Amino acid sequence: MQIDHIGIAVKNMEEASATYEKLLGKPSYKTEVVDGQKVEAVFFEAGESKVELLAATTSDSVIASFIKKQGEGIHHLAFRVENLEKEIERLKKEGFELVHNIPRKGADNKRIVFLHPKKNHGVLVELCESIKP
Amino acid sequence: MQIDHIGIAVKNMEEASATYEKLLGKPSYKTEVVDGQKVEAVFFEAGESKVELLAATTSDSVIASFIKKQGEGIHHLAFRVENLEKEIERLKKEGFELVHNIPRKGADNKRIVFLHPKKNHGVLVELCESIKP
Repeated sequence: MQIDHIGIAVKNMEEASATYEKLLGKPSYKTEVVDGQKVEAVFFEAGESKVELLAATTSDSVIASFIKKQGEGIHHLAFRVENLEKEIERLKKEGFELVHNIPRKGADNKRIVFLHPKKNHGVLVELCESIKP
Repeated sequence: MQIDHIGIAVKNMEEASATYEKLLGKPSYKTEVVDGQKVEAVFFEAGESKVELLAATTSDSVIASFIKKQGEGIHHLAFRVENLEKEIERLKKEGFELVHNIPRKGADNKRIVFLHPKKNHGVLVELCESIKP
């Protein structure tokens, strides 16, 4: 599995985007609003992986809850898989738990699921599969 | 910049290592004790990046403090750079702050510095340069 992206929860997208542009030495390549998850996502390329900044678009967004609870910071770690259903089946047999059982449409034209952090030593792990055209 | 690794703070290395072996579908490729940082590090390959599990070897390790404060989870995000001094100079001019001013010897034969999370929207960022033979 490759690391697809690191999701970082931020309060103010304009400020955070400026920070990560300076840090990574290049501008973001895409901004997307994911209505289903009530987030705005801004993407920066980092080799074969990406840094994904996430800001809440509503006060009941999961990102708003995360920041309220523990402040800004890394929200999740995403791995790219070729066949999401096959990986889900494999990982369920290994004892991992999904946060939601049915894959959802995520940002960046992906189908995604999350593995529960309690089985991953505190890490919210996303698995994502690119939607083929 | 490429993502070199994601550092994950764990309580019990044996358990965490077994979990990530199942998750990633392959065993770790290296275990290392970094005396200077009082941690044991176990590495898993993930494409061009790595997952680095970190367990405290003493109760005054930074990893022990991290877990005491916020539990297990992602501790830092590391980017690979070609020339550490050049990047430090560039980032200082951009307003970033280093946790310690002099590069240290890190795990995996690297010279490393950390950028202070308060300037990075809550993310402890490591910059690392491979030590040439």
